[in-house]
Amino acid sequence: MIEMLPSFRVTPWEVRGDKIDYERLLCDFGIERIDSNLKVLIRKILGDNHLIDRDVFFAHKNLGSFLLGIREGDPSYIFTGRGASGPIHIGNLVPLMLAKFIQEKLNSPLYFQISDDEKYSLRPDLSFREVRRWARENIVDVLAFFDGNVKIIWDSESSWLYPASLIIAKKLRIAELKSFIKLDDTSNPAILYYALLQSLPALMFQLFGGKYRCIVPMAVDQHPLMMPSLIAARRLGLEEPALIHSVFLPGINGEPKMGTSDPSSAIFLTDAADSVSEKIDRSSCSELPPSLHYLRAFDTQGYEDALASYIENKAYGCEEAKRRAKEILINLIERF
Amino acid sequence: MIEMLPSFRVTPWEVRGDKIDYERLLCDFGIERIDSNLKVLIRKILGDNHLIDRDVFFAHKNLGSFLLGIREGDPSYIFTGRGASGPIHIGNLVPLMLAKFIQEKLNSPLYFQISDDEKYSLRPDLSFREVRRWARENIVDVLAFFDGNVKIIWDSESSWLYPASLIIAKKLRIAELKSFIKLDDTSNPAILYYALLQSLPALMFQLFGGKYRCIVPMAVDQHPLMMPSLIAARRLGLEEPALIHSVFLPGINGEPKMGTSDPSSAIFLTDAADSVSEKIDRSSCSELPPSLHYLRAFDTQGYEDALASYIENKAYGCEEAKRRAKEILINLIERF
Repeated sequence: MIEMLPSFRVTPWEVRGDKIDYERLLCDFGIERIDSNLKVLIRKILGDNHLIDRDVFFAHKNLGSFLLGIREGDPSYIFTGRGASGPIHIGNLVPLMLAKFIQEKLNSPLYFQISDDEKYSLRPDLSFREVRRWARENIVDVLAFFDGNVKIIWDSESSWLYPASLIIAKKLRIAELKSFIKLDDTSNPAILYYALLQSLPALMFQLFGGKYRCIVPMAVDQHPLMMPSLIAARRLGLEEPALIHSVFLPGINGEPKMGTSDPSSAIFLTDAADSVSEKIDRSSCSELPPSLHYLRAFDTQGYEDALASYIENKAYGCEEAKRRAKEILINLIERF
Repeated sequence: MIEMLPSFRVTPWEVRGDKIDYERLLCDFGIERIDSNLKVLIRKILGDNHLIDRDVFFAHKNLGSFLLGIREGDPSYIFTGRGASGPIHIGNLVPLMLAKFIQEKLNSPLYFQISDDEKYSLRPDLSFREVRRWARENIVDVLAFFDGNVKIIWDSESSWLYPASLIIAKKLRIAELKSFIKLDDTSNPAILYYALLQSLPALMFQLFGGKYRCIVPMAVDQHPLMMPSLIAARRLGLEEPALIHSVFLPGINGEPKMGTSDPSSAIFLTDAADSVSEKIDRSSCSELPPSLHYLRAFDTQGYEDALASYIENKAYGCEEAKRRAKEILINLIERF
């Protein structure tokens, strides 16, 4: 028997292929689909959110246990973050939107990690000075997005991240880190060690005796980097963090994931209004247009109508979706 | 042909065997013996020192280049350090003595690393709280030894060590670190990464543009942990640090290296005078007595006479060496 090999590849650092088979990622990563039962529980504890309703967040780990703990009155915090190798694009905002929603509902502190160390180690072309410049610029945008109501963990400025990582490291083996993030011995050792640092904030209070529950909204490609904390939590007798995973927002040119590295295909928070318009005009109307994906994530009201209109008449519906997407996105970006 | 396997083992974390074959270590580590020519150069630039004359420091890397640079007026600093898993013993003082000598001769700054991270990661029985307690206690002794004239790098308190390590990591591969320090994939990943942190202070000024030369006095077993900086220096186009390697001081019971883990066989700075006497009384007179080794390191005046006396009459000479060792060591320890 020949096993079907996937025609795509998803790692924390690379998304490749024409189409992402999210069903297969559930198996590969050992995570669960957010089903209708869990949606009822989410609605009961956190309230209604379009990103959950529309399956933009489609998978999770330990989310049920987190929500039941919250119902019992357990204290909690939210943890998310981003690398720092360029400007923020609208795809990066998806986990931030859910983080903000949960923060407002639970009135919990929100920790946001800026991993300039990761990007510096991964990218041969980036200098330390450059990643730190991007870190500073990104922090300004993150503060704006959360109205200042966020605590920043800046990796290359943090004095506690490395020493605290030793506690997790003591419970893990090199072989395990290598298998989680698919590295071999030709890799930079800092990339291996970084896996401990990205997942660490999900356990930080528990490591020092606190009982806080943690929830981590993130794009699904980052899941492998959370494995060290999941495994270490078990071995240390701590509560595992809850993870909630989003699909990717496609690029303007139809790639399955919008990326910083192709500026013509990403919509950045730093783009001018006419640049956003130009990019959306250029986007395709075949398949499900990127504009409809953007409305799914950012248009709390009109997405379902826009989708219905597209199903009825593809050409007209696509143009309508583009018009609406320009309006919504230009308005969104103006805040930054 | 069968290769002779050594009957001893020297790694940064373990010294085993009845007798250390230092000649073999020169080959294994790729370091050079300090020969009579180099001794002349050392005497010319740094002056006379009993630890060099008596081959307590017996090997080096890049020492000639360092000394010639000093003669040309290059600025320099000294780097050494220790782990933190217990009290300091007299064997630990050997590199410190040479560091102090060089500091006084060159009037150069001295950086001393306290690697509590290393000891915590290596020792399953030690808690983070415990290693940090030892770090604090050791720092007090180190400050006393150098009359306060020393800059401490406390690993678990340092905010720059981890970010700066990324610059070296980017020039190295996991496979290289594993081969330097003989780790396999079952190891704690923090032990692998620590190798970058221990060697880093030997390059720190150069990494940020400074031209300072660095000299590192250390016991020879620590050599593998300096390999990352030696290799990274070459690849970054920086000056390699100079290393100068000492033999081990034997334990009271005749083991080739005094160790913190066997309190009955080590003489600690925290020992009372009668405890030091009792330990030396208990020491062996067969082979070259430990007391003579201690005089070799700590008795700037009387060692050669004591050795001559022992060669003439072993029983009498051994008792004389013990008497003299008690006097010298009790006097030494009283400072702490």
